[in-house]
Amino acid sequence: MSKVFFKPHEAIGENDRIDLDKVLAQLNFNADGLICVTTQCFKTGEVLMQAWMNKTAIEMTLATNKLTYWSRSRQAFWVKGESSGHFQHLKSMRLDCDGDAILCLVDQMGPACHTSRLSCFYLEVNNKSNQVQLCSPYFQKTVQEEQA
Amino acid sequence: MSKVFFKPHEAIGENDRIDLDKVLAQLNFNADGLICVTTQCFKTGEVLMQAWMNKTAIEMTLATNKLTYWSRSRQAFWVKGESSGHFQHLKSMRLDCDGDAILCLVDQMGPACHTSRLSCFYLEVNNKSNQVQLCSPYFQKTVQEEQA
Repeated sequence: MSKVFFKPHEAIGENDRIDLDKVLAQLNFNADGLICVTTQCFKTGEVLMQAWMNKTAIEMTLATNKLTYWSRSRQAFWVKGESSGHFQHLKSMRLDCDGDAILCLVDQMGPACHTSRLSCFYLEVNNKSNQVQLCSPYFQKTVQEEQA
Repeated sequence: MSKVFFKPHEAIGENDRIDLDKVLAQLNFNADGLICVTTQCFKTGEVLMQAWMNKTAIEMTLATNKLTYWSRSRQAFWVKGESSGHFQHLKSMRLDCDGDAILCLVDQMGPACHTSRLSCFYLEVNNKSNQVQLCSPYFQKTVQEEQA
């Protein structure tokens, strides 16, 4: 079980390095060979979408710096932006503590959602009315600009 | 197939409301009855973790305002912070365009990761060296404070 691989790396220090090949071989892919990916705008912090990658899609993303998912509905590689032009340029790929999730910080060209909205997460639960309603992006300002 | 439910709601307007019960009944849970949840700090924008909820865990989260996941390893409800005190207070629960992912913006008490790190995503791929190394949180400043 590959969680065994990640456990000792919890103590990773600033100068430690792990071979990428070894890490990719030990990622906790699900029964379909997929891992959950959250994609976030590197400027604003807005979470844009959630999708899936297999090992090859991860390697394609790293080789091209363009986010490449595995489309479960089409059962095919999906270079985000290939048809729309709304590419996601990779700024940072991060793995979680037990190797079963990926976070990609990206420079998003145009909107991330096929509905032309900035983010796919535009439906918000209103906990008081027990309804779901449209919501705006949560992070309006550019975090990185503010830090400059 | 519940994507049929979400398709017409792509045109949702500012004044439209959908019953929460109907939405929860139509969410695209996987074969294990689970949906992918990304949890993000509402102040900084930092993505903290990725985990899973079933329908009851979503309802428990909304009823208590404390993030409650379904632990796949323990096959049990997991009120985040129950043992550590590192609760996640819900600020906004958002659903994506096709109802197969949830984003929760939270007020995180203490670190989110069991390694005592702020975020679980502390392993970064170095694309030049083909290695994985420790990384710091990406968003250091508080977005909401900057917006004030």
